[in-house]
This record gives sequence, structure tokens and C-alpha cells, in this order.
Amino acid sequence: MAYDLSPNLAPGTQKKDLDTPCYLIDLDVMERNIEKMAAYFRGRTANLRPHMKHHKTPEIALKQIAAGAIGVCCQKLGEAEAMADGGVDNILITYEIIGTAKILRLMNLAKRVNLMVTVDDPDNVADLSQAAQAAGVDLGILVDVNSGQNRCGIDPGSPAVALAQSVAKSPGLVLNGLCGYEGHLQSVADLEERTTRAREAMSRVTATAEAIRKDGIDVEIVSAGGTGTYNITGDYPGVTEVQAGSYVLMDASYRKVLHDFDLAGTILSTVISRGAPDRAVLDCGMKALSSDQWPPLVVGLPGVEVGGISDEHLSVQLTDSDSRQLRPGDQVELVPAHNDTTVHLHDHLFAMRAGELEMVWVVAGRGRIR
Amino acid sequence: MAYDLSPNLAPGTQKKDLDTPCYLIDLDVMERNIEKMAAYFRGRTANLRPHMKHHKTPEIALKQIAAGAIGVCCQKLGEAEAMADGGVDNILITYEIIGTAKILRLMNLAKRVNLMVTVDDPDNVADLSQAAQAAGVDLGILVDVNSGQNRCGIDPGSPAVALAQSVAKSPGLVLNGLCGYEGHLQSVADLEERTTRAREAMSRVTATAEAIRKDGIDVEIVSAGGTGTYNITGDYPGVTEVQAGSYVLMDASYRKVLHDFDLAGTILSTVISRGAPDRAVLDCGMKALSSDQWPPLVVGLPGVEVGGISDEHLSVQLTDSDSRQLRPGDQVELVPAHNDTTVHLHDHLFAMRAGELEMVWVVAGRGRIR
Repeated sequence: MAYDLSPNLAPGTQKKDLDTPCYLIDLDVMERNIEKMAAYFRGRTANLRPHMKHHKTPEIALKQIAAGAIGVCCQKLGEAEAMADGGVDNILITYEIIGTAKILRLMNLAKRVNLMVTVDDPDNVADLSQAAQAAGVDLGILVDVNSGQNRCGIDPGSPAVALAQSVAKSPGLVLNGLCGYEGHLQSVADLEERTTRAREAMSRVTATAEAIRKDGIDVEIVSAGGTGTYNITGDYPGVTEVQAGSYVLMDASYRKVLHDFDLAGTILSTVISRGAPDRAVLDCGMKALSSDQWPPLVVGLPGVEVGGISDEHLSVQLTDSDSRQLRPGDQVELVPAHNDTTVHLHDHLFAMRAGELEMVWVVAGRGRIR
Repeated sequence: MAYDLSPNLAPGTQKKDLDTPCYLIDLDVMERNIEKMAAYFRGRTANLRPHMKHHKTPEIALKQIAAGAIGVCCQKLGEAEAMADGGVDNILITYEIIGTAKILRLMNLAKRVNLMVTVDDPDNVADLSQAAQAAGVDLGILVDVNSGQNRCGIDPGSPAVALAQSVAKSPGLVLNGLCGYEGHLQSVADLEERTTRAREAMSRVTATAEAIRKDGIDVEIVSAGGTGTYNITGDYPGVTEVQAGSYVLMDASYRKVLHDFDLAGTILSTVISRGAPDRAVLDCGMKALSSDQWPPLVVGLPGVEVGGISDEHLSVQLTDSDSRQLRPGDQVELVPAHNDTTVHLHDHLFAMRAGELEMVWVVAGRGRIR
């Protein structure tokens, strides 16, 4: 192909020389976040199994594992395949894997890594059992319990117990335990309310685990928790794994409810137009900076206020004389409101240290036919 | 790499056998849309130069050109490079190209296709002139005029005239004309209001063109219009090119204001969970179906109502006894609310005819380092 990629990918390239829009990681901040979360889990009953939907990048996963994480969570089969390709060998897919094509891929993955997947449906259990037998693998299973989010998951108590019993009896499958992610509570602003409600949610899952154990069936794993509840679920009796992901790069939305971790991920953009004395237009629209949560934060430019976004444009209001000096070509850096959907827009993450490019990572977990 | 792609990519594969989530095109519908728009422009003063931000796929561009389009518009340099790689040789980039790295790529592109780009800033004109001379190319320029959208673009009248004069005098640059996209009017629901306001917007651009011509400077091109105003700008005296793009695949948002074209693009999804009698969860979240406009439309299942969306889940309410028969593994097809940001999430488009896969297209214009 005859097109030119940006020439500015060499280690040591200054931020000011990077082509935009691009996703930047401040490595010092990210590494502090990874270490802080890992330190919290050292010596605790619960382990950290961070979620990869946040960054989809094996190189970051390996740093998390090196700091103490026992493995990773993935939301999609394609993410899990990318993690396995990148050297991660202990993976929980927190998603129901449905259909012949995906189940075949799942079995191939189970042959090369330590793999678990969640289930909430008896027919799916039967399909997985049949495929696992055909493939000659023992597939780890967590029963997905609806702890209150009302999305996927089987009801706690007897429905979940019955499904777990069925898994335990299914050849090719190994019942490892339960999964009960309280996603609806991650952004509850009031910490006391978040704590109370997360404990309520956890109690539904751990009570179900107890009920299963009463039948003589081992429940080794109870997986729950996110970044907004990491130290609530991480301390909750009976929870053995916490799925927190967003602590690594963080984003403006999580920052509203949690200050334990710092902002490590930003979008670097360029002013492309100055249409009016109080308006500039940046080259990061919805195809570079997701708009499903709002607003992003402007880094270090107090007089720049985020306005309307379209596919490839972000309009900003310039509210003081300093910001009105911005010219086409000047760079503006923004913290995404929602990191996970923003990373998903990018093929590459630019890993920076002290304002210089250290390396470029491929977002290997995005974009596969899945 | 050891992972498996979906095996179901062979021509003739039935829709029911496709892995999901994936983006489907109904080729019969798309080809009708392409022909209908092309037919409108036959024998008219204005030409059709459709916008590629809609689908980013050279194979579709070539069909549009074969039907009569004079070339294409692109929103990003990377899209234009992808179109050139795919065989498109007449490209207008409706975007300000700023900065050394991108301007160098722009010049390389100008060496191999008939290329125009928009400008709204004197310094950018100077940079492009210098780079074009160094590269030994004559770069086509449209002055970007703010016809009322208040995003990019220089004010109509004397500011735009002065910039056009400066372009006309700049070695390496060729003033081809003006661009005045009235993006803020595309979705005005009332046709009469849309017509009146689009004509007002056009009059600002065409009056500026006349003022430039009074100075003896040729203004060959006046580019404007979108799918929502194609037959308003397409008939407006002095407009020579219309940039409509969304008529090809359409989406649920455009469909609210325009029925001239049919819905050709859908997301095929699979039920992955049935958590409650009246709830199902689909495998198309915000990473497969953009949520910046809302809601998507469910195709052919009256009892299925769209509920909440998260990264990889779409919850739907099941409001009748038929829809409550849905089981994990069943497919549900949805029309995106906003096509352009949805296509951008996918690496491949599955081109279907009569329910069978005809071919798989790569969305070549997305994801490059740009």
C-alpha cells in the first residue's frame, strides 16, 4: 500500500511532534495505579483479576499480572484470544459464549490457556459440555448470578443453585464458582450508599455459594466488584476475586466518584480551526473520543470549555484571553469521559513517559471478527 | 497468530450462520439508494460528490462513481488515502489539514490522485503553498465558508473573499472554489423550514462566490449539501457539487426526516441471555452499535423494545408472547440510530443479498494512525 503512516513513532518523540488525534498513556501514572491496586490486594483473601475491556492491550495486562494480578477478565472472546496471543495464560470471560462458531473458538482457546467462562442458561451449559467433550478439554465455569444489575445472570438462590448443580454434573465442564458483577453500583456517587448496596449485592452471591456448598459441591471462586467497589467487594467475606479494570487508566466519569487512582489516559488533539474569537475546533470527534458519557476534561487549559462534538470535530469555547491565543496546530489534551469506549476507537495507544514516546501498543483486543 | 476468525465468511453463507455482532448491508437496498440519488443528479447543473465518512469503504465508493458521482468527499486524510488505495482518483477532503506530518502525507496523496482540500486560515494556506511547491504539486483548494453551522469555516463575504484571493496568489495552490456545508440543518424535521434555512445558508456561499468572481478570480466549484438537503442544495443556483453521504446506508435518525431512501445497514446481533420473562440481552453494546444518537430500530420483531446499552450488552424488553419465545442463540437485527459512528466501530461490512453473504468488505478508511 502506498499511503504513509505518521513518521513520528520513534521512541523519544516529543508529545508536540505526535500526529493527532491519538490516545496517550502517561506510563508513570498508569504504573502507580497498577501498583496501588496490587498493593491493596496483597495479603487479602480476595485476589485481583483485572478486567481487560478497559484497555484491551496485552502489554498492560502483563504489567498488571507482574504486579500481582492472578489473571485477567475479558468481556469478549476476541479479547481473550488477543490476551492469550500476548502471553496471558489465565483468563475468565465474564460473558455468555453462545453459538457454534464462538463455542468452537472457545474450545480452541481452552486448549492453550487456563480458561473460565460464565453461564446463565441450561441450554448453553449443555452446548458447552458437548463441545468440551468433543474437544477433549475441561472448561472452567462460573455461574453468572444477577446480583441486582438486571442484565445477564440467573437469579440468586435456588435458580443459581440448580444451574450450578447441573454444571457440576456436566462432563467436560468444571464448576469453579460464581460471578456476580454489581455494575449498576460502580458510579453511585455517595460512598456510604455504594457500600451498603454493594454489600447487599454481594450477600446474594455469597449466600448462593453457601447454598451450593451445602449440597457438597465445591465453590472455589466468587468473582465480583469493579473499580468503584474494589475495596468494598475486596473486603467482603466470601468474595475471592475482584474484577476491577478502570483503575489502570481511569476516566473523567470514574474520577467523579473515586480519587484513589489518577488519570493516566488522554486524547491528544490539534486545533484545526479558529472560526470565531471565542471558538476553536479540535480534531477529536466521536470517532476518536466516545460521547456516551460526558463531558471529557480539558487538561491544563482553564479557559477552554468543551462544547459540541460531531464525527470528527470537537468545538470548544475559549473563555479567557490566554485560551484565545490558541492557533491552528496547537495541541489540546483531553481526558475521556468514558475510557473503555474511547480506547475501542483506537488501534494504537501511545505510551509516554515524561512527555516522550516510549512505545506504541496495538489495541490487540479490538476489531476482530467476533 | 493462533486465534481463529469466524469460519462463516464464505460467499453463500446464510444470515443465520453469521457470527455476531456484525454489520450487514442489504446490497439490493443499497444499490437502489445509490441509483436513486445518481438519477436525481443526472442532467442537473450540480454534481454528486458523496461523502465517505458514512461508510469509509472504497468498494462502495466505486459503485457510487460508476452510477455517476464525480468523485468523493472525505473527512479525514486517512480516509482519503484509503480511497486512493482502493482506486478512487478524485477526492475532496472537507477538513482542514494542519501540521507538518499530515501536510507531508497530503502532498504525497496529491501526487497520485486529483485532490482538493478545504482551508479557513491564512497560515494554513501559507503552509500548504510552501509544501506544495516543495513537493512539486498543484493542490486544489476550496475555501471553507461558515454558512451557519458555526464549526469550521471562515465567515462569508469579505473574510472569505480575502482568503480566496490569497489562495489564488499562492504558488502551488489552485483556487477551485468554495465549500459551505450546512450540517446543522440536515436533521431539521420540518421540510419547509429545512428548505428555507438551507437556501439562506446557500445564499451566503454563492454570494461570496460572486464577490470573488467580481475580482476576476474564477470560482469553478461551490460544494454544499448533505442527505437531508440533497434536493434543496442540488437545485440551488450556483451550487455545483453536493456532498450527500448518508443516503447509501441510511440510519434511524435520518429516517425520521427523510423517506426518499431505504434502510440498507443493520447490526446483526445474538441473544446471549434471558434474565427475566420480559428481558433479553443482545451481544451488541456500544462497541458494536454507537449510542450517540438513540434509539436504534429493531427489524421485524414488534414485541422487542430497545432498553439500556452498555459496552457489550444491549438489553431489550419483550412486550408480547411471541417475543418472549426468544432464546439465547436467536438473532435480532437492528438499524443503527447513527450509521457513521457505528460503521467506524467495525473492521468489516458483510454485504448480503437475499439473506446470503455475497462478500466481506474491509472498512479501509478507519483506524489508521491519522
